[in-house]
Amino acid sequence: MNTALIVLAAGKGTRMQSDLPKVLHPLAGAPLLIHALQSGGTLDPDRTVVVTGHGGDLVTRAAQSFDDRITCVQQTEQLGTAHAVAQARPALDGFSGNAVVLYGDTPFISPDTLDSMITARAKHDVVVLGFHAADPGRYGRLVMDGDTLAAITEYKDADEATRAITLCNSGVICADADTLFSLIDAVGNDNASGEYYLTDIVGLARARGLSAGVVTCDEAETLGINSRAELAAAEQQYQRRARSNAIADGVTMPAPDTVIFAHDTYIGADALIEPYVVFAPGVTVESGATIRAFSHLEGCHVSQGAVVGPYARLRPGAELAEGAKVGNFVEIKNALIDTGAKVSHLTYIGDAQIGAGANIGAGTVTCNYDGYFKHQTVIGAGAFIGSSTMLVAPVTVGAGAMTGSGSVITRDVAPGDLALGRAPQVNKVGLAARLMGKLKALKAATKKG
Amino acid sequence: MNTALIVLAAGKGTRMQSDLPKVLHPLAGAPLLIHALQSGGTLDPDRTVVVTGHGGDLVTRAAQSFDDRITCVQQTEQLGTAHAVAQARPALDGFSGNAVVLYGDTPFISPDTLDSMITARAKHDVVVLGFHAADPGRYGRLVMDGDTLAAITEYKDADEATRAITLCNSGVICADADTLFSLIDAVGNDNASGEYYLTDIVGLARARGLSAGVVTCDEAETLGINSRAELAAAEQQYQRRARSNAIADGVTMPAPDTVIFAHDTYIGADALIEPYVVFAPGVTVESGATIRAFSHLEGCHVSQGAVVGPYARLRPGAELAEGAKVGNFVEIKNALIDTGAKVSHLTYIGDAQIGAGANIGAGTVTCNYDGYFKHQTVIGAGAFIGSSTMLVAPVTVGAGAMTGSGSVITRDVAPGDLALGRAPQVNKVGLAARLMGKLKALKAATKKG
Amino acid sequence: MNTALIVLAAGKGTRMQSDLPKVLHPLAGAPLLIHALQSGGTLDPDRTVVVTGHGGDLVTRAAQSFDDRITCVQQTEQLGTAHAVAQARPALDGFSGNAVVLYGDTPFISPDTLDSMITARAKHDVVVLGFHAADPGRYGRLVMDGDTLAAITEYKDADEATRAITLCNSGVICADADTLFSLIDAVGNDNASGEYYLTDIVGLARARGLSAGVVTCDEAETLGINSRAELAAAEQQYQRRARSNAIADGVTMPAPDTVIFAHDTYIGADALIEPYVVFAPGVTVESGATIRAFSHLEGCHVSQGAVVGPYARLRPGAELAEGAKVGNFVEIKNALIDTGAKVSHLTYIGDAQIGAGANIGAGTVTCNYDGYFKHQTVIGAGAFIGSSTMLVAPVTVGAGAMTGSGSVITRDVAPGDLALGRAPQVNKVGLAARLMGKLKALKAATKKG
Repeated sequence: MNTALIVLAAGKGTRMQSDLPKVLHPLAGAPLLIHALQSGGTLDPDRTVVVTGHGGDLVTRAAQSFDDRITCVQQTEQLGTAHAVAQARPALDGFSGNAVVLYGDTPFISPDTLDSMITARAKHDVVVLGFHAADPGRYGRLVMDGDTLAAITEYKDADEATRAITLCNSGVICADADTLFSLIDAVGNDNASGEYYLTDIVGLARARGLSAGVVTCDEAETLGINSRAELAAAEQQYQRRARSNAIADGVTMPAPDTVIFAHDTYIGADALIEPYVVFAPGVTVESGATIRAFSHLEGCHVSQGAVVGPYARLRPGAELAEGAKVGNFVEIKNALIDTGAKVSHLTYIGDAQIGAGANIGAGTVTCNYDGYFKHQTVIGAGAFIGSSTMLVAPVTVGAGAMTGSGSVITRDVAPGDLALGRAPQVNKVGLAARLMGKLKALKAATKKG
Repeated sequence: MNTALIVLAAGKGTRMQSDLPKVLHPLAGAPLLIHALQSGGTLDPDRTVVVTGHGGDLVTRAAQSFDDRITCVQQTEQLGTAHAVAQARPALDGFSGNAVVLYGDTPFISPDTLDSMITARAKHDVVVLGFHAADPGRYGRLVMDGDTLAAITEYKDADEATRAITLCNSGVICADADTLFSLIDAVGNDNASGEYYLTDIVGLARARGLSAGVVTCDEAETLGINSRAELAAAEQQYQRRARSNAIADGVTMPAPDTVIFAHDTYIGADALIEPYVVFAPGVTVESGATIRAFSHLEGCHVSQGAVVGPYARLRPGAELAEGAKVGNFVEIKNALIDTGAKVSHLTYIGDAQIGAGANIGAGTVTCNYDGYFKHQTVIGAGAFIGSSTMLVAPVTVGAGAMTGSGSVITRDVAPGDLALGRAPQVNKVGLAARLMGKLKALKAATKKG
Repeated sequence: MNTALIVLAAGKGTRMQSDLPKVLHPLAGAPLLIHALQSGGTLDPDRTVVVTGHGGDLVTRAAQSFDDRITCVQQTEQLGTAHAVAQARPALDGFSGNAVVLYGDTPFISPDTLDSMITARAKHDVVVLGFHAADPGRYGRLVMDGDTLAAITEYKDADEATRAITLCNSGVICADADTLFSLIDAVGNDNASGEYYLTDIVGLARARGLSAGVVTCDEAETLGINSRAELAAAEQQYQRRARSNAIADGVTMPAPDTVIFAHDTYIGADALIEPYVVFAPGVTVESGATIRAFSHLEGCHVSQGAVVGPYARLRPGAELAEGAKVGNFVEIKNALIDTGAKVSHLTYIGDAQIGAGANIGAGTVTCNYDGYFKHQTVIGAGAFIGSSTMLVAPVTVGAGAMTGSGSVITRDVAPGDLALGRAPQVNKVGLAARLMGKLKALKAATKKG
């Protein structure tokens, strides 16, 4: 059966104390909304509608950069969750099948849970996602009648017996789309806050003789983010899961609690990740690679047997081939470090190709920027770049060529040639002793004066 | 009413296993004593007396560098807390009002708690700060008689019923100064350790028909530091509170547990602090600034929209104007990086001014030190400093000027000029191939040999 | 009495999901096996036999590089623990005394515990190491008969009363070697898994009228490693202990949880270790030294009063004499930094000696590698190396000599001389303005185009 996702993402998130719309705050490097869309995406939905509100343009851009087939509709007034879902109706014109309502600030609902909800639709017209709360607090309670859901009772409307129920409402709902919208039509706003509540559809469904059921999941999946403290807690939950997944997958991490993952980090088995490594989004590390301590990686690929760090920074577009080595205080951006090439210390390589087996000396810089444009540097296989070589791009150093340390290379170097740009060394006899003597005397005079 | 602080800071702290006097061990970058003085300082005291003992000179210097109006008196023999307080008497000659006794090794007493003690003085002649202990252990017990304090009973003198009391003595006391010293005169040392105990004044006050009362605070506030393990626990407590305060203030921190604050760190709302950032003392970061991972800041100011790191070190006197950028493996000391200027990689800027919009190439060094003196470097607005430029200070590069990469700049460069100091590049045909061939042969011979 | 260790190290460790034999996975930088050998080594054994199996060659190499007197015997079929111990018999030919059976995957058995087992041998023929399990789960139970051990009952063979016992079997056993092997001869494999179990010797001993006893230790000591998750937990346990030992020894660590120790890290009292420091194996830090944040040390020695970091990397062979200073973004390898010498920023020093009181400017590189060989750099006492000096090794700079910043030094510099290798600075009037003007126009044209 066809599936449509409706993702509510209109909230301002006042408690976040931020100009950024709540659903765009990042978790593991991706906006909360993207986590919800990724989770819902595993249902392979035919249509996805995001209901935006505060910061609608920014939210729309984020949603469509994730998947440009997503429709975004603007909820201009915030009149409650049922009202928000109703905004999705025009975008689902002609659609028939299951509609699943998710929340842009609820990033942890698992694919398995959503599958179970779709399956439960075979038995029930409306399926609500519930959870057994350790501390039910002010959550809405799910009042069961045997295997079916009798009602969702808000905390403030609940009597003592109902408040004793620990099965709570997550807000996630699945129903046939036509049924959903038909029920929403009947929702009123005759309540204290004057809002249209999506939860009311359960009572309305029962009144029409439809069946409502509950699927339960772990409470951790239903965590919604309303404050920075909750976001920090969610990040911690995400990291804990990512770390134990990596360990279970055979990644070697002596200090897993110090490794920070992004939402899309991929690390192969038997890779070694030392302490204090940060993975920003877009990183893949193959089996048998080593990421040493204090390294920072983003948008890059590290092949088998490559060694990164300590203190290496790989920026977007860094590609390390097999056995490549990038050492301490080295920055690589938009560059290929080919098989077995070494960039061991204190170097900036940007917009470049470093050939297989090449050796780049300490203090080397690809001078890729002239203030207005970026230019390419190409280093051939087996080349030997002397320490503190300035490679003024665009420039090519051929295979097996060398540059003398301290040289500024502005013209291409042919394969096998040695390029030098170096003033001859002059030793001035006794001059250091005289200079230091003068400075020392001056210093002494200054202190007295 | 006037207030005087008496801060006891004479203890050696044998269990710290250190030559440093106990109260000078740092918590969040400031000596324990300073935390106590800051807390007491919120009462706006008319006089502050610090009673020193072990390492008295060092302690005096620390106290007076915090506030030079503080009087320090030396307790030459350590004869107990009442004896210590008595040393403060001459320094309070002519003072009339409340005296508050604090401890230099007890850094967490909150301003609100001290306010409550002052307020409670309206009802009681002597006010003692108590706390409900989770594990009362060997603390002195506060024996209440309705709303008034009947006695402070030391653990070793307590019967089983008294030991069952969980309300314990923090040691912090507030009383009219004349009353306090008059009571102290009556304290004896007829006890097992032969010391004069400040706690005895409660019994003496009651015997004189004076009233004693209790103000309670959270147990965490009363934490006293006697060992390195306790200091480490206090640091952890401090950091936890600083992190959650920052989150509550609207600072964005994906991994708050990895950010280390100093006692005086200030961070504006919606600033982003990435993982693994260390704030040493003296740092202010404005709203909307970004501090990226693995950065270390001390004694510096980061303006709105500025970006620091990853792997940036800002040392004392670093001033980043709006939109300035300091990137990886860059050290800034005693220097202004003006609006929108960029120092992106592998650079040392010390004793310098970098003009608005200037671009500093990778590997640049301000050569500010000649072995005896430090000199200034001034870079004009919009200047473009080529990679690995050595700026031999004192030197000025004018607005809109450029330096060629690899140049050593020893003379001033006028605005709009291009300065070059570079040996011409010479390509020696086939020489690299021949050199490498020889080395390779030599290596092979060495291995055989 | 003589002692022999038998260390079982044949297991594959399938659950580790790794090609590396289980006992070679590192804990605090040393293979698990080495921890077991170090612990057992405190008994000063006359002979040590390691029973290898999977990856026998690798395991043998590791054991013998720890102590080349160790005998390794290969267990070609994995037929159970009794069978494994039996493999050690030929290697103990002629030995008489106590045999202690340890496990290569059980790194935390303490020397005190082993001492207690040896002592208990005075009373019992067979001594088993037990522990009171918080959650006994599926451990074998030690069934006591007063002060003697009646039987070890496997969980699956235990009735409800036996399962209620919380005293469990660690597997570690001590017995007279002849007795041990004689008992093992009698062990059968008539059980579900068809294996020869070492635990069966207790029942056999009792049947022969011999006495069996139990020594107990803390459960944490008996932790065996079977999966990466258990290895991570063991690492955490190791680090926790190392941190609290260091604090107890008087080391100053404001954030001990962020400092990572190796198995052999030595730090003197009153040394200061700032947050985020990683100690790889082979590091000694003397009292009064300072290791600043984000530093990484391996195989090096830091003397009293020396300061390292922040962001310093000391590699094997780095030796810092008293008062030496190694600052940010500096890498030191196989080099002496003599008394009071300073290498403050952005420098690579490899294969070198830096004389007392010498000052190395920012951006300096010892060019120690020519693609095939490594060469030495020697800097004399009090020398002043200008920023971005390339020291092309082999090269010597004499005492009190100087190099101009940006110089490439290929020939020796005599004491007191000043060496310069620098192209003269030329200022081209107005050229920067014209160049930037052209680039700006080109950029504008590109954007329109």
